[in-house]
Amino acid sequence: MTGQPRRSAWIATEAPARTGSNYPPEFATRVAGRSKRPLGDLFGLTNLGVNLVTLAPGSQSSARHRHCVQDEFIYLLWGELILVDDSGEVALVAGMCAGFPHGGTAHHLINRSDAPAVYLEIGDRLPGDSADFPDDDLVARHTPDGWRYLHKSGEPYP
Amino acid sequence: MTGQPRRSAWIATEAPARTGSNYPPEFATRVAGRSKRPLGDLFGLTNLGVNLVTLAPGSQSSARHRHCVQDEFIYLLWGELILVDDSGEVALVAGMCAGFPHGGTAHHLINRSDAPAVYLEIGDRLPGDSADFPDDDLVARHTPDGWRYLHKSGEPYP
Repeated sequence: MTGQPRRSAWIATEAPARTGSNYPPEFATRVAGRSKRPLGDLFGLTNLGVNLVTLAPGSQSSARHRHCVQDEFIYLLWGELILVDDSGEVALVAGMCAGFPHGGTAHHLINRSDAPAVYLEIGDRLPGDSADFPDDDLVARHTPDGWRYLHKSGEPYP
Repeated sequence: MTGQPRRSAWIATEAPARTGSNYPPEFATRVAGRSKRPLGDLFGLTNLGVNLVTLAPGSQSSARHRHCVQDEFIYLLWGELILVDDSGEVALVAGMCAGFPHGGTAHHLINRSDAPAVYLEIGDRLPGDSADFPDDDLVARHTPDGWRYLHKSGEPYP
């Protein structure tokens, strides 16, 4: 969109999508069916990230994690998802939402249905964030160059 | 909900709603048909505000404004709205979204249809915010006690 004036509004599903992850490869496979449309960036937002996320059947939103700084919120638009948090599993249908305060319950979403699921995910962009992953040998630290992944021992992933 | 454990997820339309505004009375009438369900607060989010907003026919989301600190984002779930910004008017239908970076275009939403419209509105909660209203004799300053409204001369509204 270089050189084009910024639009006042977008049809969300027509926004550019990106796939892939910067997780270490042993975790990236879990999110291989995830596609994100960064909606907030289209409008030049800097304090908030807002993504339209599509999860294919079998895919996860992320490894189960909690942030130490960032608050997160999700709203399910279409399809069915399982929310896994510290309390167990909750089945989500379209029109349901969940929020994850920093330092709160560790969480992720799994699509166990046979159809894609689409949701909005929102997070703030306060500095100094990190994330812990209670089910995995994984810790993440946010740096000016993006997320860096470490073993729980502190050794970086290659 | 005092004393009850926090739920992992909510059906958004079943969340408690509030109406009313702390605008000076001459502006409050414009948003009299607005109802907000503060979804983020249900989960204890502090860095983000997320509301499910219903605008009755004829109602506005707010007086047209821009924030000096807060980024805002809206996603229209049901119904039809008119977005008014510095460039003019854009008709929004369900599935469309718009974002408003701090210091950017002044904006508001108007329901000119004959049915309610429902959207998600999201904003960060960085401190030191203020808002200006290019169409009205109105300035807003955020304080620890909430929003304070002033004339452009600096004189407070009663």
